[in-house]
Amino acid sequence: MRNIKLTIAFDGTEFSGWQRQSNASTVQGELEKKIALMTGQDVSVHGAGRTDAGVHAVAMTAHFATASTIECMAFKRGLNSLLPSSIKVLRVEDVAHEFHSRISAKAKSYHYFFSTEEVILPYRRLYCAHLPLGFDLDLARQCLQYIGGEHDFSSFEATGSRDKDKEGGRGAVRNVFSVSLDRSQGAATEFLFKICGDGFLRKMVRNIVGSLIEVGQHRMTVDAFARLLWQKDRSLAGPTAPACGLFLQQVYYNEDIIPDYGQQGG
Amino acid sequence: MRNIKLTIAFDGTEFSGWQRQSNASTVQGELEKKIALMTGQDVSVHGAGRTDAGVHAVAMTAHFATASTIECMAFKRGLNSLLPSSIKVLRVEDVAHEFHSRISAKAKSYHYFFSTEEVILPYRRLYCAHLPLGFDLDLARQCLQYIGGEHDFSSFEATGSRDKDKEGGRGAVRNVFSVSLDRSQGAATEFLFKICGDGFLRKMVRNIVGSLIEVGQHRMTVDAFARLLWQKDRSLAGPTAPACGLFLQQVYYNEDIIPDYGQQGG
Repeated sequence: MRNIKLTIAFDGTEFSGWQRQSNASTVQGELEKKIALMTGQDVSVHGAGRTDAGVHAVAMTAHFATASTIECMAFKRGLNSLLPSSIKVLRVEDVAHEFHSRISAKAKSYHYFFSTEEVILPYRRLYCAHLPLGFDLDLARQCLQYIGGEHDFSSFEATGSRDKDKEGGRGAVRNVFSVSLDRSQGAATEFLFKICGDGFLRKMVRNIVGSLIEVGQHRMTVDAFARLLWQKDRSLAGPTAPACGLFLQQVYYNEDIIPDYGQQGG
Repeated sequence: MRNIKLTIAFDGTEFSGWQRQSNASTVQGELEKKIALMTGQDVSVHGAGRTDAGVHAVAMTAHFATASTIECMAFKRGLNSLLPSSIKVLRVEDVAHEFHSRISAKAKSYHYFFSTEEVILPYRRLYCAHLPLGFDLDLARQCLQYIGGEHDFSSFEATGSRDKDKEGGRGAVRNVFSVSLDRSQGAATEFLFKICGDGFLRKMVRNIVGSLIEVGQHRMTVDAFARLLWQKDRSLAGPTAPACGLFLQQVYYNEDIIPDYGQQGG
């Protein structure tokens, strides 16, 4: 059996997230159907994580075992012609049997785009959250120092959602390597939040962004934000920011260099 | 009667272009319907130009006459709540009766995004044309010197499409103030063509881009491109580039500063 690694970009707008569902279109489900079509064999595609409905990916990774002798380039071309245009396979690689897209991952990064203008630009509405009105960037940035580092992120975890079998005994503790918050270069009226860490709880990025926006729009103080981490109480944090602004940017393995966005943990 | 100027952004993906049609959804049609709903009066919205199906706008302008006393801010808010999310009114202004969105315009600018990578990123597929494979940017750039300036652009005009009533006796002659072609800042694997001129023939921008891509992909020489302008023969130019990459960027009036993209006309 071969072990094949996939790197996949997708527009999450029309999908009910990554994870296979019997009655809904998902990215995992689409990939499994098309690989089965090409190989004539049922297949389980294991992703590096489970993105929620509406979340996008610049470079999700996944792996699957197959007895097929189809070459990697032929897999890539074939899948890209079979898959809907909202999913594209960027790379197909034969990897060692030990490689596991989730367990082997050293880090993941996410980008979150949001606009706080009165009106969201129509051609950005599916890829940038609209959270009017106004935003004090400098104030929100003061919160970044509290996010970086190893913390219990319970306050930013979707309630009742822990994957008990996946936490490796560390509960809600995750190590955030670096974060940043800036005006987005691509669009003048947008902001871009970047975060890279060794793992993320469910909706953790969107919950952090939700609280950063509370601060930037003067509904929460920087001190209150700082207290969230040790309070470990989801009900004290801001609302979950919309899915459409979130992009899984990259999954990092041994050979990859983990990015430094500037603001490290304390 | 008041004369009201609108500045409008739209995602052209789902529209059959700007111009009102009896059996299809268009931007002009949507605006007229919603303004009629607000004012209780039939209205004709006159645009600065007619964008084709699938073309987007960052800032289209239009005007309409109305006896309504609704204030500009209320018009903006009302229209933005009534219009589909793919159209947003950015500004509503009372203007002089002499103002005409098309006739008063001094210049228009367009941006065209395209990717020549093997695979188009899914979240860019509706806003960036996919024209694989490879692109010699420096070679294509050598063509820019021939576009700038006042020329007969017959070679880049959609066949049989001249608006005879609108050409003001100058046939296919248009003055291109400046053009540029660069890697797109927002997305590393994309290119961005910018053009600003006093007017554009139907599909002129997409036809110019189509020929630039022929040159960048070595199917046309720079010399052949240079000859296109005096040959005045549409059949010698490249194919029309896809609509989805094109954005009407801005319409310039007396008070506006016309941009300089670097490459002026000879």
